[in-house]
Amino acid sequence: MANEPTKVLLEESQIPRNWYNILPDLPKPPPPPLHPATLQPIGPDDLLPLFPADLIAQEVTRDRHVPIPEDVLDVYRLWRPTPLIRARRLEKSLSTPARIYYKYEGGSPSGSHKPNTAVPQAYYNARQGVRRLTTETGAGQWGSALAFACAQYGLACEIWMVRASYDQKPYRRSLMRAYGGTVHPSPSAVTTTGSRILAEDPGCPGSLGIAISEAVEVAGGHDDTRYALGSVLNHVLMHQTVIGEEALEQLAMLGETPDLIIGCAGGGSNFAGLVFPFLREKLAGRMAPVLRAVEPAACPSLTRGVYAYDYGDSAGFTPLLKMHTLGHTFVPDPIHAGGLRYHGMAPLLSHIYELGMVEAVAKNQSECFKAGLRFARTEGIVPAPEPTHALAETIAEALRCAETGEPKVIVTAVCGHGHFDLPAYEGHLAGHLEDVPLPQERIDTALAQLPAA
Amino acid sequence: MANEPTKVLLEESQIPRNWYNILPDLPKPPPPPLHPATLQPIGPDDLLPLFPADLIAQEVTRDRHVPIPEDVLDVYRLWRPTPLIRARRLEKSLSTPARIYYKYEGGSPSGSHKPNTAVPQAYYNARQGVRRLTTETGAGQWGSALAFACAQYGLACEIWMVRASYDQKPYRRSLMRAYGGTVHPSPSAVTTTGSRILAEDPGCPGSLGIAISEAVEVAGGHDDTRYALGSVLNHVLMHQTVIGEEALEQLAMLGETPDLIIGCAGGGSNFAGLVFPFLREKLAGRMAPVLRAVEPAACPSLTRGVYAYDYGDSAGFTPLLKMHTLGHTFVPDPIHAGGLRYHGMAPLLSHIYELGMVEAVAKNQSECFKAGLRFARTEGIVPAPEPTHALAETIAEALRCAETGEPKVIVTAVCGHGHFDLPAYEGHLAGHLEDVPLPQERIDTALAQLPAA
Repeated sequence: MANEPTKVLLEESQIPRNWYNILPDLPKPPPPPLHPATLQPIGPDDLLPLFPADLIAQEVTRDRHVPIPEDVLDVYRLWRPTPLIRARRLEKSLSTPARIYYKYEGGSPSGSHKPNTAVPQAYYNARQGVRRLTTETGAGQWGSALAFACAQYGLACEIWMVRASYDQKPYRRSLMRAYGGTVHPSPSAVTTTGSRILAEDPGCPGSLGIAISEAVEVAGGHDDTRYALGSVLNHVLMHQTVIGEEALEQLAMLGETPDLIIGCAGGGSNFAGLVFPFLREKLAGRMAPVLRAVEPAACPSLTRGVYAYDYGDSAGFTPLLKMHTLGHTFVPDPIHAGGLRYHGMAPLLSHIYELGMVEAVAKNQSECFKAGLRFARTEGIVPAPEPTHALAETIAEALRCAETGEPKVIVTAVCGHGHFDLPAYEGHLAGHLEDVPLPQERIDTALAQLPAA
Repeated sequence: MANEPTKVLLEESQIPRNWYNILPDLPKPPPPPLHPATLQPIGPDDLLPLFPADLIAQEVTRDRHVPIPEDVLDVYRLWRPTPLIRARRLEKSLSTPARIYYKYEGGSPSGSHKPNTAVPQAYYNARQGVRRLTTETGAGQWGSALAFACAQYGLACEIWMVRASYDQKPYRRSLMRAYGGTVHPSPSAVTTTGSRILAEDPGCPGSLGIAISEAVEVAGGHDDTRYALGSVLNHVLMHQTVIGEEALEQLAMLGETPDLIIGCAGGGSNFAGLVFPFLREKLAGRMAPVLRAVEPAACPSLTRGVYAYDYGDSAGFTPLLKMHTLGHTFVPDPIHAGGLRYHGMAPLLSHIYELGMVEAVAKNQSECFKAGLRFARTEGIVPAPEPTHALAETIAEALRCAETGEPKVIVTAVCGHGHFDLPAYEGHLAGHLEDVPLPQERIDTALAQLPAA
């Protein structure tokens, strides 16, 4: 095996030509989103003020394959295909017979998997004549991906960044500006919602819910402006399937069949993007990998939430989505994996979880940072706090293999680098990060406020 | 040309098997380093307390090709070969007939070209039984590369980081710690030199000269410890030639012959690594590219310095090196391209410049940041401040081509990403960065303090 490559690379001509839509391959469709007032399924027209027609069509399409436009492929080529890397040095440090492969998405312009959907979203908006996109961002991964994508198609990009992050994460804020984006701390005086909140509480640290409200308000109020969302929706998950499609191709080149696919899950787009193509192969009987989502113990929507209709945002402005949720009023502890601090899980992924097709486990933060450091010191890449969750489970599984002697083939994704999260690593190294158990009553309190549906 | 790829990738089997040593291909050798007391050429033995024997041998070897050890290739495989990327979107934004290619070294573990030499340096030290490496670092690029490399071979790594940077660049400091390095602010109480300085001036912001003294003091005082340098020396430049060797191969795959190679130059290792293999081809008559170094107007050792014997460090502890220098007491203005703020230029590169084989130009900081932003918004990658110097000249040349209609083939290197330099971009965007001319008398004053040799 010494002559096998460490990295499996594909040619640009091997970038997938289609996104994969898992809907037609499921035994039954997921329950539809409901209008919060009428409790009736919402139609495509209800979404037109916020999204371009092409994306709304992708949200509900039953086509198994959706062609990737040439203009999107052209931007994907800046960093795709991404490498599949055999983690030989990590394996060696674990003395495991397992073979560990990771798909690395941190080499994208903004440093995560987010541009996979930001680029087509910007493209379809630009094609429809939209001049500006608005969005919210927490830690800034999504905002910087969208700012980059907008720069590619000449769109203005306006981002409401949760005030607490705006103050604490100046590098991410600067990255959005370097790409030409406009960044507002949220709440902001720019919107009615923000102004009202600031009038009541000038020092308000903001929340993702407030930032969504501001971005949606501006998009809804201007004909030339639309809104963009970085996870949760069907079309976002579909755009991310380029990750899994490439990984399938790369494993085939090695003649490897995966026994286990492990991905971190917050809103669900990274996990779905990696796993859905493998699930298709599994449903077709061509392979039989276990598919395992890893979520933070501080925000365990799959492992401790319920499957129910709930709002997508904390403020309760969105349609009702049937999903695994801790309740839209649930506020997770401030762990550093900001991208995993979401009260719900993508409806499509929640549905698939309900069908018993994927497993889920939850991890404490300190185990994850330990895994991140081990990965950095062996493989060289400092991973973002989000994928350290997948790495912690990968390492745990590889150590189980070391005990049993099983040469399992484990595939995971490092969905982003941790260059902007180094203060969190510093905190871990200094022993400042403590794992705080999540009491059941906090979940119960939030679940008591689920909307009636 | 539409079907030509954006990125030219090589297989891992195409990582060069040898470093290229340009010495035997030069019409005459560069003048030797001198002992500062005797003014006699220093011998290999003088360096044994600081460097392992293998690296000292590489420093003086006349072999044209030096084999890269298998254990070094094994670590190179984590990120090498690096892509050669056609900057199509940048070209389009400039409406230029020029074809622009850039070698991207920012995908390495620590985010720059520095691991190309940090890895072999750590390897040869480990092989000789050394247990610990010491070094200095300014902005932190070199320190983080060495910390990563030491983690690969089980060496301890102790880094003296200039106090001002230590306080201003916490992310780089954390990166070194994430790799397991120990980082001291310099001056530190750990050394005699540092303690003495702190006793006189407890608030001393430090300097590269002081940090070198501290690292050398600790290396010299312990049998199991050696010192590592990130640029300037012959063996460091030689390790970097993997950049140019790969680029040659990649251009050949495209059937392209370069008209112009542009690289930024501070200590000289990035420029030499990119350019020396092309210079070999030029000397052999196989191509005739112009080779152009770009340095900051605030630290113009090639364009405004003299060619003379000088100390390698500001404090005057090192052997005397014949090089282009602004004088070892010259303190450049605090531009953000920390890696280009060196009073001298690698002796080998200085010698080649004297032979008339390469050109040099100097650029102001604001033109460089403008180029960096244009590059980020078209190509997606936010470049470190150092390579924005090469990009500024590349863009200027491409615009000249737009006027003349010449379809020049321009090759450059983006030797690192700018993720840890985003506050500098923010300052540029906010209009806080001003170009301050460098008065001739500041250079003259420093040159008046050149050592007699």
